[in-house]
Amino acid sequence: MEARIKLWLEQDGRIVMSDYRLQLLRHIEETGSLADGAARMGLSYRRAWGKVKELEQHFGRPLVESTAGGPGGGHTILTPAAHDLVARFMAIQERLEAEVRRLTAEHFPPTEAARSAL
Amino acid sequence: MEARIKLWLEQDGRIVMSDYRLQLLRHIEETGSLADGAARMGLSYRRAWGKVKELEQHFGRPLVESTAGGPGGGHTILTPAAHDLVARFMAIQERLEAEVRRLTAEHFPPTEAARSAL
Repeated sequence: MEARIKLWLEQDGRIVMSDYRLQLLRHIEETGSLADGAARMGLSYRRAWGKVKELEQHFGRPLVESTAGGPGGGHTILTPAAHDLVARFMAIQERLEAEVRRLTAEHFPPTEAARSAL
Repeated sequence: MEARIKLWLEQDGRIVMSDYRLQLLRHIEETGSLADGAARMGLSYRRAWGKVKELEQHFGRPLVESTAGGPGGGHTILTPAAHDLVARFMAIQERLEAEVRRLTAEHFPPTEAARSAL
């Protein structure tokens, strides 16, 4: 038996972080581009942009920062507030996952049969 | 900020318990009837029956027991295995919810402003 969880953060009843949103932000950060981050998620630029703007509205602060044009083209990075939000989300997630594993082992201890089959 | 979770149990990658399924089982238990429990969930008898049979298949043991006919009509109760599964699920859920509240307070402490507004 395995206990599994999904975690998300809400502010005033509106989602400000989840696994899916975390992935989108990380892909943007890794590629340095909203378009490339969107592509990695299989999202259109328009849809990814909408997601980020929605998140920013729910959170009440900018999460991405873009510099336009220049010789190397535009670039998008996460704001310090986004890094902070992501870090707290991941810290909570990590602790909860550990707790879930502990609780599973406590409430569904492996049977003798399962142990000897290992 | 509020961290929220959804919990479910899997066995061999197949869901054997979740909030939704827990509610269905509890309604069946409370009404003593699969039909009435289904109605409380806004489900057809057929659909509720299918859900329960699917769960039993995933879990590998009967979860409900029906007695047919008689003067008072049929009756459906949860098996001891179902009661046990429900109890363990709820115990894990309760502990996790407490942990989520603790982690939220730790990682998103109320600001001075929020505290003085209380």
